[in-house]
Amino acid sequence: MHCFWKPEGMPPRTLVPGVTAKIASGERMMFSLVTLAPDAVVPTHSHPHEQMGMLVSGTMEFTIEGETWRLSGSEMYFVPGGVPHAAKAGPGGAVALDAFSPPREEYR
Amino acid sequence: MHCFWKPEGMPPRTLVPGVTAKIASGERMMFSLVTLAPDAVVPTHSHPHEQMGMLVSGTMEFTIEGETWRLSGSEMYFVPGGVPHAAKAGPGGAVALDAFSPPREEYR
Repeated sequence: MHCFWKPEGMPPRTLVPGVTAKIASGERMMFSLVTLAPDAVVPTHSHPHEQMGMLVSGTMEFTIEGETWRLSGSEMYFVPGGVPHAAKAGPGGAVALDAFSPPREEYR
Repeated sequence: MHCFWKPEGMPPRTLVPGVTAKIASGERMMFSLVTLAPDAVVPTHSHPHEQMGMLVSGTMEFTIEGETWRLSGSEMYFVPGGVPHAAKAGPGGAVALDAFSPPREEYR
């Protein structure tokens, strides 16, 4: 069954302080539209799910296996399953779209 | 191996007239950052890969199994594998991020 989603109608879910997400699930993939408050931090973590993401607005530092990129524009990243990563929003905050495969059951 | 991508450095690939994409591949997923010229049309087609997408800028009509939504903002869509879908950019063009799982080998 296909779906369309309007973010305005989706309840935000708090991931960590200052970081909320709106979740849309397919079958093999899940989208998480993440809003980070200015300077908000997602501490280093890992999960078995593959993650790809794209910055939508603002700026963000994204660290994967100890390598940090300062993202701007529509820059993208790929985190293989099980690999430690972290994020920190810039001073103006950030919005990013994360995609997970398989979907993260804990976010449904 | 993790990756970061800057869209400015990625070669655009023409999908159909007026529609180009920049492709980034993971293992289970592929991102396609699609730019549609004003009123550009992606004709009805299907593929076995699951597709989820989000409008990044502009406006776009997206049709799945005959149901058409006029997308604006950061609206999202899910197209199960094998389901016919089509798109048409609005008069100002559009940018959308599509994610496929599994990756589309023909785009690598």
